[in-house]
Amino acid sequence: MTTPSSLRSFVEVAADSHFPIQNLPYGVFRPRGAEAPRVGVAIGELILDLAVLEREGLLHVPRSHGETLFDRPSLNAWMALGREAWVAVRRQLTHLLDRDEPTLRDDAALRREALVPRAECEMLLPVEIADFTDFYSSREHATNVGAMLRSPENPLMPNWLWVPIAYHGRASSVVVGGTDLPRPCGQLMADGAAAPTFAPSRAVDFELEVGYFIGPGNRLGEPIAVDRAAEHVFGLVLVNDWSARDIQKWEYVPLGPFLAKSFGTSISPWVVTLEALEPFRVSGPPQDPPPLAYLQSPGYDSYDIHLEVSLQTSTAGAAERICASNFRGLYWSLAQQIAHHTSNGCNLRTGDLLASGTISGSTPAALGCLLELTRGGKQPLKLADGSERRFLEDGDRVTMTGWCQADGYRVGFGEVTGRILPARPIRPAV
Amino acid sequence: MTTPSSLRSFVEVAADSHFPIQNLPYGVFRPRGAEAPRVGVAIGELILDLAVLEREGLLHVPRSHGETLFDRPSLNAWMALGREAWVAVRRQLTHLLDRDEPTLRDDAALRREALVPRAECEMLLPVEIADFTDFYSSREHATNVGAMLRSPENPLMPNWLWVPIAYHGRASSVVVGGTDLPRPCGQLMADGAAAPTFAPSRAVDFELEVGYFIGPGNRLGEPIAVDRAAEHVFGLVLVNDWSARDIQKWEYVPLGPFLAKSFGTSISPWVVTLEALEPFRVSGPPQDPPPLAYLQSPGYDSYDIHLEVSLQTSTAGAAERICASNFRGLYWSLAQQIAHHTSNGCNLRTGDLLASGTISGSTPAALGCLLELTRGGKQPLKLADGSERRFLEDGDRVTMTGWCQADGYRVGFGEVTGRILPARPIRPAV
Repeated sequence: MTTPSSLRSFVEVAADSHFPIQNLPYGVFRPRGAEAPRVGVAIGELILDLAVLEREGLLHVPRSHGETLFDRPSLNAWMALGREAWVAVRRQLTHLLDRDEPTLRDDAALRREALVPRAECEMLLPVEIADFTDFYSSREHATNVGAMLRSPENPLMPNWLWVPIAYHGRASSVVVGGTDLPRPCGQLMADGAAAPTFAPSRAVDFELEVGYFIGPGNRLGEPIAVDRAAEHVFGLVLVNDWSARDIQKWEYVPLGPFLAKSFGTSISPWVVTLEALEPFRVSGPPQDPPPLAYLQSPGYDSYDIHLEVSLQTSTAGAAERICASNFRGLYWSLAQQIAHHTSNGCNLRTGDLLASGTISGSTPAALGCLLELTRGGKQPLKLADGSERRFLEDGDRVTMTGWCQADGYRVGFGEVTGRILPARPIRPAV
Repeated sequence: MTTPSSLRSFVEVAADSHFPIQNLPYGVFRPRGAEAPRVGVAIGELILDLAVLEREGLLHVPRSHGETLFDRPSLNAWMALGREAWVAVRRQLTHLLDRDEPTLRDDAALRREALVPRAECEMLLPVEIADFTDFYSSREHATNVGAMLRSPENPLMPNWLWVPIAYHGRASSVVVGGTDLPRPCGQLMADGAAAPTFAPSRAVDFELEVGYFIGPGNRLGEPIAVDRAAEHVFGLVLVNDWSARDIQKWEYVPLGPFLAKSFGTSISPWVVTLEALEPFRVSGPPQDPPPLAYLQSPGYDSYDIHLEVSLQTSTAGAAERICASNFRGLYWSLAQQIAHHTSNGCNLRTGDLLASGTISGSTPAALGCLLELTRGGKQPLKLADGSERRFLEDGDRVTMTGWCQADGYRVGFGEVTGRILPARPIRPAV
């Protein structure tokens, strides 16, 4: 169910707000002073508290069997219900927020309780994350990295155009945007050295990604067909997959990245639903060679999501945009990723986070990590305040944002932000 | 707290039983007919139902704050309490089961309720698994695989003797022993072919591993020092890390194994505690070069655990032992694995499963997977019934077992078993 672009809410929403009535993303928040986190949707500068609406009997949720869904610290129970419930509640929320609907608009006491200023709320990790899988689905990113680390003449691995390459990530260290992270320590092996050292990473990077949450899963041994995959997707978030390139370089052969990534992964607090993104569905890039049958779908879809990264150093007065990319260029679609992931019978579960991998475009300004922006640290990025960056320095804040632009409104993701703090002192081991 | 070898229970326990009073491993079981799974410990051919003892007020658990711990479908709440509670309850259980202690022995009604035959119970996955990490800590295994896939002259990667190599595994598809698994399908790339095909794997393998569960975790950003690591380990299980070698070969560069492993990982249902294993602590193998400081501990420990794999084909009359190995040869210790895993600040959580990787020894009979036993399928394994195996065929059952041998009793793991079923038909994608 998409929401007509003509619709307006009685809640004031600026034209460049990410959260008009056409969006209604889900998050978990704690109102200042209140103890228990609960589920809400963002509308303009406010949050609509769904636990209040649920308690007041204003929501009728198919398949809920009378269970409380929104007076909870995560979206998991809600996500597990599936699309029928999601669409029904979206319709009710759209109606309740409509400028012509008096139920909420004209009940001052209810409004005061159910609509709280975002600025007064703490946003929490919205989902109890089950497994985290990170794909590697941007052809431009895989090509750039392959050219640097392998061969400029033959940068793409032979499997890349056939296999939606992915690896298992670390679920425990996924944090909500706003969480600062200490610079990780790890084994670093200098070129030509006889032995590695254990020291703070000197090559901390960000990666611009988009992730999505699985609602209903599948049973072990029962793959999800590519044309049914979208039924399992609840919604999308921005992901910053922080990476320590020097740790990665030394550890990743032959089993892939491990400690280079597991010190923290940041996600944006608002989950934008597939229903809200529907008007921005576009065709993905052409695929040649044609994918194997299990990856072919008649609607090979992507979404037109503009993405930006900005960097604020501890000395600069303002954040500076250092990357502008777009989700639509991603080679492997969400449906293909899901069909591939489950093609061996692997079960997805409610709360699984699947992410795109770094989303780079074909222009120099559209590169989604410092590794690419600085060509492995060889060409420093020059910032407006005169400083330079090869990789992130202590105190640097990275903020990612993204939105879909319609005529007169935006369906946006808000932002995911995080700062790199100095490394903690290395304690003697014994 | 270890239990004296002279101790005996009033429950009859055969000399070769894995579950004497010196063991007392934890599991989650469902008595036949009863609906709710609960926690028990194995003793001989029986299970002691801890939910019953808890209800009857026979257990006094430090730090429990009156919370129910054993009338639950997983060990997680129990594991979260930490060693002080584990040791205290072990002491109480040892006392209650002592042949000279009348409380349980002489109360026929209580015995009938609290001691149930294992043969009448269904064993369930004992832990709600958070993240699953698989190490690669057997030098013999890494050397054999490196010699086959890379170079016989220089088989170990340069990082291997410095870094306890690991990768993130898939938590959702970890199943309890006894679960049969269909042969996975996946992309297979034949040598010299122009394109891969999607078909059932022709190279399904087992991997003999030992895993362990994390009790109390650590906070993000706060590494666990190597000499404190054991405090975080609740207990150990056997792990069969099923692998599809042909899928693995095509997919694993550059991000590591993914679908080759995620179709299923089997663990044994009984978790053997560190307390029970304490009498079998031995020194690990010498480490040269000496590990970096964060991996050095004064007690560099391993355990003397005899391990076996047997194979039962659908045509053979009996299972046949095809591998005998030992845990003690593992190069990287559990403490080193934990210190490394958290050295970048990564947080472990209650319920995390960490596994050793394939445990191979230095003799031909001690190789822990078919890939090594058959040299990549080149030298088929000849079975007693005259048949041969390169990799597993449909209907093959693999059973792993393991135990520590003391004078007059064994502390054992029971077994983990599973059968490979025919692949499910590949459905048309659209």
